[in-house]
Amino acid sequence: MVRSFNVRTPGQGLHEITELVSALVRESDIDEGLCTVFIRHTSASLTIQENADPSARRDLEMWLNRLVPEGDRDFTHTAEGPDDMPSHIKSILTNVSLSIPVIEGTLALGTWQGIYIWEHRTRPHTRQIVVHVG
Amino acid sequence: MVRSFNVRTPGQGLHEITELVSALVRESDIDEGLCTVFIRHTSASLTIQENADPSARRDLEMWLNRLVPEGDRDFTHTAEGPDDMPSHIKSILTNVSLSIPVIEGTLALGTWQGIYIWEHRTRPHTRQIVVHVG
Amino acid sequence: MVRSFNVRTPGQGLHEITELVSALVRESDIDEGLCTVFIRHTSASLTIQENADPSARRDLEMWLNRLVPEGDRDFTHTAEGPDDMPSHIKSILTNVSLSIPVIEGTLALGTWQGIYIWEHRTRPHTRQIVVHVG
Repeated sequence: MVRSFNVRTPGQGLHEITELVSALVRESDIDEGLCTVFIRHTSASLTIQENADPSARRDLEMWLNRLVPEGDRDFTHTAEGPDDMPSHIKSILTNVSLSIPVIEGTLALGTWQGIYIWEHRTRPHTRQIVVHVG
Repeated sequence: MVRSFNVRTPGQGLHEITELVSALVRESDIDEGLCTVFIRHTSASLTIQENADPSARRDLEMWLNRLVPEGDRDFTHTAEGPDDMPSHIKSILTNVSLSIPVIEGTLALGTWQGIYIWEHRTRPHTRQIVVHVG
Repeated sequence: MVRSFNVRTPGQGLHEITELVSALVRESDIDEGLCTVFIRHTSASLTIQENADPSARRDLEMWLNRLVPEGDRDFTHTAEGPDDMPSHIKSILTNVSLSIPVIEGTLALGTWQGIYIWEHRTRPHTRQIVVHVG
C-alpha cells in the first residue's frame, strides 16, 4: 500500500508525524512487514528522535544551526535566500527515507522514538510525505 | 519475516553485527529480497563501514567525538549526563535504519562492508535491533 | 526484482543515476511498491538532492570538503592516501541505502529530487549499485 499526505510546517523545526504514519499502518491492515516514509523535498528531511523531553529537540536544532549557519560567504547558491543552501546541507546530513518494521500491526518504534519532519526553511511550507507499507 | 535481538554494547564505539543479521537472512530462506535493520534507540545508531582495518573505525570515532564534544555549554538537555545530548546528535547524523538487498540468499554487502551498531553512550547498554527480511 | 549495475565515476563529486534507477523500475513492471538503492562501498555514498541548479551541488561539495578536510593530523588510517579517511567519514554522514516508493510504475521523487552517487575519492572509481524493486 502506498499513501501520500501533506503537512503544513510552521517553519524551521522538528514536527512530529508519528501518529499520521501509524494511522496508515493501521489502514494497511498489515500484521508483519515494513513501513517506509519518504519526503519529496530537498530542503526538509526526516528523522527519528526522542519524543519525550522537548529540550532534546531544541538542542538538536541549535547544534545543527550552529554547524550550518546562514550567511556562509562560500555559498554561491543563494538566489532563494540565506536559508536555502543550509537547508540542502541539513537535508543531506539527516534522512530522505526511513524504514521501520511493523510487528503485530504496529510500528516497531522504541519507547522514546518519534518520527519527525525536520523543516529547514525559515518560513512555513507544505511538505509531501509518501508512505509505503508492505 | 521480522525478528528482534538484543546486543549488549561494552560502551562507546562501533560493534559489528553483520553475522547476527546474516544468520536471520539465512533463517528466512529468502533467495532474493530486501533486508532492513532497525535500531529502537535514539542514543545509539547503525552504520555500514569498513570491516577490515580497525584504524578506520577508530578514526571515525575520533572524528565524530571531535565534531560533537561533551560539555558543550549551549546544551540544555543534560539531565542524563554529558554524553546524553552528543549521543542524540551522533544518532541523527548516522542511521536508525539500513536496507540491504539479498541476492542468492545472502546480504549483497560489498567486500569491505560490515554492519555496525554505533554505541554513543559512554557506559554499556542493551540495544534492541529489529530485522525485516522480505 | 534485484539488479546490479556499475558506474564509472570521474572522481570526487555528485554523479546522477536517476535515469539508471528509473529504467530498472520500468523493467520490473511493478505498479505500486518500493525501490531501494544500495551502494557496495564505504568511500562513496548515495544522496537525493536538488537536480536543477548545479550551484547547489557545488556548494554541498564545498561544504562537506571543508567539514572533513584532507590532511587532518589526527587521522591514523592513511595508508591509501589523504582522501581515504575523509571518504569514509563523508560516507557515514550521507547514505549507503535509499528507499523510494513507486507509484503508477514511477519513482515517487519530488520535482526537484535526483538520485546521486557521491564519489568521495579523488580519482575515478567503478562503483557497484544494487537496486531492489518489490
